[in-house]
Amino acid sequence: MEPPSPEVPPGGLRDEQRVLVSAHSWRPCPKARRRLRGCLELVKQQLFRVGEDWYFLFVLGVLMALISFMMDLIVFRLYEGNEGARAPKPGSGMGREVCVGGVSGGSTPPGTFSPAHRWLYQEVGDYLVLKYLSWTIYPVAMAAFSTGFSQSITPHSGGSGIPELKTILTGVVLEEYLAIKNFGAKVVGLTCTLACGSTIFLGKVGPFVHLSAMAAAYLGKMRTSVTREYEDKFKQNEMLVAAQAVGVATVFGAPISGVLFSIEVMSSHFAVRDYWRGFFAATCGAFMFRLLAVFNSEQETIAALFKSDLKIDFPFDLPETFFFMVLGAICGAIACAYLFCQRWLLAAVRENRLTGRLLATDKPLYSALVVLLLASITFPPGLGQLMASRLSMKEHLISLFDNRTWGVLAQNASAAPAVPGDPQRLWQEWCHPSATIFGTLAFFLLLKFWMLTLATTLPLPAGYFMPIFIYGAAIGRLTGEVVASLFPHGLRVEATTHPIVPGGYALAGAAAFSGAVTHSISTALLVCEATGHLAHVLPVVLAVLVANAIAQKCQPSFYDGTIIVKKLPYLPRIRSRHMASYRVVVEEFMDRRVVAVAKGDGFEEVLAALSATTNGEYPVVESAGSPTLVGTVSRGQLVTFLQSHEHPRAPPGLLQEKPASMGTVGDDCAIEPVMLQLSPWTSLHQAHHLFELLKLQRIFVTRYGQLAGAVTRAELRRAIEELANPK
Amino acid sequence: MEPPSPEVPPGGLRDEQRVLVSAHSWRPCPKARRRLRGCLELVKQQLFRVGEDWYFLFVLGVLMALISFMMDLIVFRLYEGNEGARAPKPGSGMGREVCVGGVSGGSTPPGTFSPAHRWLYQEVGDYLVLKYLSWTIYPVAMAAFSTGFSQSITPHSGGSGIPELKTILTGVVLEEYLAIKNFGAKVVGLTCTLACGSTIFLGKVGPFVHLSAMAAAYLGKMRTSVTREYEDKFKQNEMLVAAQAVGVATVFGAPISGVLFSIEVMSSHFAVRDYWRGFFAATCGAFMFRLLAVFNSEQETIAALFKSDLKIDFPFDLPETFFFMVLGAICGAIACAYLFCQRWLLAAVRENRLTGRLLATDKPLYSALVVLLLASITFPPGLGQLMASRLSMKEHLISLFDNRTWGVLAQNASAAPAVPGDPQRLWQEWCHPSATIFGTLAFFLLLKFWMLTLATTLPLPAGYFMPIFIYGAAIGRLTGEVVASLFPHGLRVEATTHPIVPGGYALAGAAAFSGAVTHSISTALLVCEATGHLAHVLPVVLAVLVANAIAQKCQPSFYDGTIIVKKLPYLPRIRSRHMASYRVVVEEFMDRRVVAVAKGDGFEEVLAALSATTNGEYPVVESAGSPTLVGTVSRGQLVTFLQSHEHPRAPPGLLQEKPASMGTVGDDCAIEPVMLQLSPWTSLHQAHHLFELLKLQRIFVTRYGQLAGAVTRAELRRAIEELANPK
Repeated sequence: MEPPSPEVPPGGLRDEQRVLVSAHSWRPCPKARRRLRGCLELVKQQLFRVGEDWYFLFVLGVLMALISFMMDLIVFRLYEGNEGARAPKPGSGMGREVCVGGVSGGSTPPGTFSPAHRWLYQEVGDYLVLKYLSWTIYPVAMAAFSTGFSQSITPHSGGSGIPELKTILTGVVLEEYLAIKNFGAKVVGLTCTLACGSTIFLGKVGPFVHLSAMAAAYLGKMRTSVTREYEDKFKQNEMLVAAQAVGVATVFGAPISGVLFSIEVMSSHFAVRDYWRGFFAATCGAFMFRLLAVFNSEQETIAALFKSDLKIDFPFDLPETFFFMVLGAICGAIACAYLFCQRWLLAAVRENRLTGRLLATDKPLYSALVVLLLASITFPPGLGQLMASRLSMKEHLISLFDNRTWGVLAQNASAAPAVPGDPQRLWQEWCHPSATIFGTLAFFLLLKFWMLTLATTLPLPAGYFMPIFIYGAAIGRLTGEVVASLFPHGLRVEATTHPIVPGGYALAGAAAFSGAVTHSISTALLVCEATGHLAHVLPVVLAVLVANAIAQKCQPSFYDGTIIVKKLPYLPRIRSRHMASYRVVVEEFMDRRVVAVAKGDGFEEVLAALSATTNGEYPVVESAGSPTLVGTVSRGQLVTFLQSHEHPRAPPGLLQEKPASMGTVGDDCAIEPVMLQLSPWTSLHQAHHLFELLKLQRIFVTRYGQLAGAVTRAELRRAIEELANPK
Repeated sequence: MEPPSPEVPPGGLRDEQRVLVSAHSWRPCPKARRRLRGCLELVKQQLFRVGEDWYFLFVLGVLMALISFMMDLIVFRLYEGNEGARAPKPGSGMGREVCVGGVSGGSTPPGTFSPAHRWLYQEVGDYLVLKYLSWTIYPVAMAAFSTGFSQSITPHSGGSGIPELKTILTGVVLEEYLAIKNFGAKVVGLTCTLACGSTIFLGKVGPFVHLSAMAAAYLGKMRTSVTREYEDKFKQNEMLVAAQAVGVATVFGAPISGVLFSIEVMSSHFAVRDYWRGFFAATCGAFMFRLLAVFNSEQETIAALFKSDLKIDFPFDLPETFFFMVLGAICGAIACAYLFCQRWLLAAVRENRLTGRLLATDKPLYSALVVLLLASITFPPGLGQLMASRLSMKEHLISLFDNRTWGVLAQNASAAPAVPGDPQRLWQEWCHPSATIFGTLAFFLLLKFWMLTLATTLPLPAGYFMPIFIYGAAIGRLTGEVVASLFPHGLRVEATTHPIVPGGYALAGAAAFSGAVTHSISTALLVCEATGHLAHVLPVVLAVLVANAIAQKCQPSFYDGTIIVKKLPYLPRIRSRHMASYRVVVEEFMDRRVVAVAKGDGFEEVLAALSATTNGEYPVVESAGSPTLVGTVSRGQLVTFLQSHEHPRAPPGLLQEKPASMGTVGDDCAIEPVMLQLSPWTSLHQAHHLFELLKLQRIFVTRYGQLAGAVTRAELRRAIEELANPK
């Protein structure tokens, strides 16, 4: 204890001196100390410098996992109302995997299908009208609220958001789309959409990708405002790519396929560097998501989301590969039909006089009407009993991935009613006395095709991946059951028969159909990661490849189709591999009428240029006579130039008095250098490649340094379309 | 039967007429027929047009799978000599997965370790000298032959080939490297290397990637010569990328991770379009490879290569995640040490007087000496007994991935000798009476570190991935065993204890160490696909991420390190994310002394330009006074120009007689347009991005259309190095 020194005034100085004194008196070997301190400082700096991106990605992953988990929980509660049997059942592996997951949640026992909605439905007794009302009113109200709420805050919060994000990643600026105010609207709207459950049959993958991108954009802005560092476009893009991976990973709890799927769906090129970011963020997200399920004592430890118990000692026989490929072809063909109908309906609904007006002015009413139709079809005492409509989406998937053969089960089934709470009995929902399981599956496929197509026209926040996934699983299950009934003892004629596992076909069908619709191959891995079952990977990949080959040949992907219908900027692929396509050069399709300003231009010319086009930037040339490209100047600069220089003729009396204000563009504007120029002899292929790689919007064409024209995405697109459909 | 018409001369015309007649007489409804024929023709055309790439990729995949399988078979026979118990053992899952796989093959029963080499070793009886000779002579002879044979055919066939391929993919032309004559040399050499077995501990992944690329290049040449179609560079690159995926996939039988691993290791950017090709080819390859194993009745159906029977109902407890991350950190640290030592030794061996001379003149002798040393260390009665040297590489992996805890097994082990042929007893090789299993594992790690480093200096065709993979598995097994012995009843204190599974740590270790050494993340998936076990995927990914973070921070990857040591062209990454790095512009580091020719140049100037540099192409400017860049002209063109135009002063008498030959470059040479130019104000980041994306070698810099300089990879590299180490 030091005695207080009376000379020193109380407060700051006194403390300071005390520190000085103690520093002198208490610290030996100052050199070693200083060195140590330097080392620590270095470690700290190093950690912070390296870690900057890490922290960011970590926070993003954890945040999205929290939101995903919370949303599932709320949806489950909205659905369940009261708590049923919530004691964990170790060992069952499926019994308590309740509300985790991208689907509407609630693995409440089938038969006692979960309350709030289902509870109401059961409590009303046997009055058919009341039953009908209780079945339909809940989803109608939810969908109308979801539409109204999200649309009232921002019109951008509807739909999945993936097509728009894809457009943003090609370099187009859709500033509004990543604004944080969409976030809340989308979260609330999506929760309501999911609470409708399997009635409207929509998922959450797309919106989560969008939410994740919004969060990343917002966090990025926060970071730049804190560190005051320059954030360039590349970095923003890198972060968006990582954010998409997080979006997929936090829905499925699948880090690897999350990264791959988001890459495949979103971009045409990507840097392996971004890979790492995506993996890190997605792993954080997926890990956190599964961790929360454990903390919530839904699971004992981290396990696959839709954990299947397919037997793995003999997953499939070799000749079955043929059937898997047939399944792939079927999925590809149905995907083509689906994509075509979906695009057609999306356009038809907008063009139709009645629905078009509804969509323009009364979106909630439109949603309510469509959902009423969908709910009426799925009404269990009506058509619903033929399509297992009492199952939630997650139960649909679990029942379709069942490792037993339904055909065999149905023959041996006892008349005893389903034991409530037994996930082993989910298949009985597919069993109807007046129709075989083939009948119900086929009916499900037939009706859901149109219901799905209709549901995609709803203007509420919703994802379209999960329903497609389940639809594919149903195709696979049907194919598998047919094959199993054709060859009840397996394909070999040996003593040790290996029966066919229809669950494997369901896996392949889910991967192949969702892969064909989204034009991606990584769904093969997604299905493996989501079920924790890897033994079928080769036939699944084969089916996915076949389905993709067919779908990519015939139709644009689901997301590209939406981009086309929504008339967003879109750069088609050059499909032709003919010699002729390599001979098309920029000169043939470039825009020759480029509005340029010369260095010596004054008020008049700038005004003329500004009123001629609305471009964001103008090329600056040496002079009108020799148009050597000097650089570009932004529209804002030119406007400022106009404002600071008065019109030479406006105040005629002052004309001679202000020679100083008669500046030129070259003197008074900041001219940006042009980084990249094309030559008129660059080929279409090369130009396309550059636009894709560098996310260009417009590039100038120079001939011996002189401005000859410009190429934008519009010109490129026209050239590609002419190549495909020559006049 | 038609009667022959006498008027018609025999031969062509007669046949033609007959066709005409029959067409008239036999075919009704010509319109429908024509339409049908048109449709068929269309289908045929369509199929062929679409299928072109498919056929190519299919053939490539099947071809490489056949070679991979045949090589394994030959290696196995070379090893085994006579046939042991070759009856398939259904159900064991591991017993008959014999020579499939990247490792030296031979799951002959341990204890009776397989003949030719092993048989000799056993037959010589108990004479230690004879035993030693029989143990060492076989691998020494094999390695010497492998080196001598492959080096005598072509010096490019040594090593793994991945570093060189990586260089080729950045756009550098190493024509010789993909020549087909390397193919035979590499196949024979690699077979001999693999026949040495676990003595020299080398694999086949790298050489297979190289072989696959050679096959693709050759097939591509064949295709162009058949179809006479223009094959551009993009297409060649696409095919090479697919070929690499095939190489990895046919070794591991893992299509998805094959594609991902090859992408991560090879390229800095890639097109999602190529993804599809890679997947298709890799799936064909992997499928064929596994199919052959079934046809050879080694397996009953297609299953994972190193199928593990890790229990999956409770793979790991949550707190174990911490240990997995510690394991990742350990793997990362050891990987850094390994990479440093490997690079150091590779350079030291070349610089050392003795070894350098040996490597330059007597490569087989060098190989023989090194292998003699390695074989002496692994001699089973000597040090070998402490490092399980009697196991083959595949047996190493299978034993390390064992789902039981060795520590527990060792305590309960009976004194009974190992039952030959029981894969469940492989772990006993790791059990030594005078050392615990911890001792043998640690000893294995300590010695193999140096043996591996030494083995990579061998100038024979060999892969370095598999040994690293096994080494990582050993690190993981040691960590897992330590954790299991610390917490014998698992980490929880509940009634239902979940013991720790050291096999899971072995999986994570293999993925983390091989990922850290190669700077790739997809090893996490590779380990899952190769073992067919997906339950550990999240902790494995975590470990891989931690290991990668450490290794990428401290050392270049194994392949980049080899590129640096071999002095191949190499473009480092810009590591700095500082503001300052964004301010460096092209003007600061570009090469200003560019040798250009003017349009009006004649003999003299061209001669001067040609002798000034050895560039492949020269920029052409308008005139020396106003150097507006007009285009480029190739060196060959200029040489032709010189040859066709005589020296104006050489034959003085003829000077005035040949004014016609006094042409200029502008008139007589084909001037190629310049596609892309940089401006002096382009930033270093942008220039680097362009070089990486577009695989550029040299790009010209123009200021207002006038040639200001040029940037090559050398200048870019210097600028990046200066940024990292500012003077």
